Amino acid sequence: MREPDKRAALLLIGNELLTGKVRDANTQPLAELLFRHGIALSRVVMVGDERDTIVQEVEALASSYGWVFTSGGVGPTHDDITMDAVAVAQGTHVVTHPELAAMIRARYGERCSEAHLRMANVPEGSILETTEGGPPAETREWPAVRCKNVWIFPGVPEAFRMKLGILSAVLRRHGHTSGLCSAAVFTTQEESAMVAILDQLVREVPSISIGSYPKWFDETYKTKVTFDGESEALVKDAAEKLVARLPAGTAWFG
Amino acid sequence: MREPDKRAALLLIGNELLTGKVRDANTQPLAELLFRHGIALSRVVMVGDERDTIVQEVEALASSYGWVFTSGGVGPTHDDITMDAVAVAQGTHVVTHPELAAMIRARYGERCSEAHLRMANVPEGSILETTEGGPPAETREWPAVRCKNVWIFPGVPEAFRMKLGILSAVLRRHGHTSGLCSAAVFTTQEESAMVAILDQLVREVPSISIGSYPKWFDETYKTKVTFDGESEALVKDAAEKLVARLPAGTAWFG
Repeated sequence: MREPDKRAALLLIGNELLTGKVRDANTQPLAELLFRHGIALSRVVMVGDERDTIVQEVEALASSYGWVFTSGGVGPTHDDITMDAVAVAQGTHVVTHPELAAMIRARYGERCSEAHLRMANVPEGSILETTEGGPPAETREWPAVRCKNVWIFPGVPEAFRMKLGILSAVLRRHGHTSGLCSAAVFTTQEESAMVAILDQLVREVPSISIGSYPKWFDETYKTKVTFDGESEALVKDAAEKLVARLPAGTAWFG
Repeated sequence: MREPDKRAALLLIGNELLTGKVRDANTQPLAELLFRHGIALSRVVMVGDERDTIVQEVEALASSYGWVFTSGGVGPTHDDITMDAVAVAQGTHVVTHPELAAMIRARYGERCSEAHLRMANVPEGSILETTEGGPPAETREWPAVRCKNVWIFPGVPEAFRMKLGILSAVLRRHGHTSGLCSAAVFTTQEESAMVAILDQLVREVPSISIGSYPKWFDETYKTKVTFDGESEALVKDAAEKLVARLPAGTAWFG
């Protein structure tokens, strides 16, 4: 793996997302996992099942971000073109991975068809990642496919989440353990009533990223204010400062 | 409005999305609405609350797509920088819109503060769009802000959905009434078992976009196959062909 920097990008692939048939469920759990491991998800792009578009996007993202993830377009049917597109973007081509092919044959036995075996097609040079770090055959795990800095994940949310378990283990093995801390304050104050207080706080604690999110139609609070930073003490301190500066009884910790 | 083409893009703005604190809820309803009106959402990009990044994205999208939407970064606090960024990207700057300022003053009365009035700041030349097509003061509606081909929507999902009502009315007024039709077939067949049938169908009905989506851990079906096209008859015909070619009793219409 190339020296990993701390920035990541995600490419969501699928006409079903762009036509509103399906609501993306993969960005949020990946974003949360990366945040916890101290890697900043900086950009998410959603495109349709068009080979040239995917090639172009993967090229652009893989050259700018240390960690790139694709979601979707992995499978045996005509619209599953991600493996091929990632291969082209990374300057290589698709080959049958013997270890994956052996696993597929073992799983499907006599029912194993050519369509099943297409699932063993990956960009040449791809690595099979597992939670244990060992080869899939020994760890008895269905692996995640990584081609250089591009992780090729399935789009089906249940399958995507399984790959996140592998990613999390790999990140821990590479020492990405201490991520950012986060705190939240909920308040019955309207966002517009807190502008001066928030502006002041932003200037006071430049190392903390402060976000302010109004909630509509909620009886319990009007605004949520979030604090992100590398130091738990500073994050906590900033959140406490805000609560102390708001009218008594109008704010509490999330 | 410039002669609208049929392609759209959406820019989602907000650190809360990229850190996994919040799951995007705006892409799916916008995608569905555009699809229904025959406009193809072709690209969605998600970025953080960074002014230069937003300027760059809006520039790129506004020059390539007839319809561009931004979601988020609209409000009175320090991280609300979308109005400014869209203005710069469109070669102009932010001004106080007198009609919006009057509406804000009327709504908040004596409580109206400078922070409230910041919500009247929009890119110069922006149009206030309403469901009726008349000025907001007459239609008594909170308008949607459009700067050339860029619609600036709030990120809060409840507020975003209100703007979709306005967008839908505008699309109808511009004659975007007949969109694509869609049909779905659910089947207990595995995706890998249908590859040959689907490949054949894709060749037979080139005007129909066919998608195949495996469902995991569902007791009722294994794969959903979708059909999108401009002709309701052709869409229906393609879906019926698939059901007829699958084993009896394994597939049904969605």
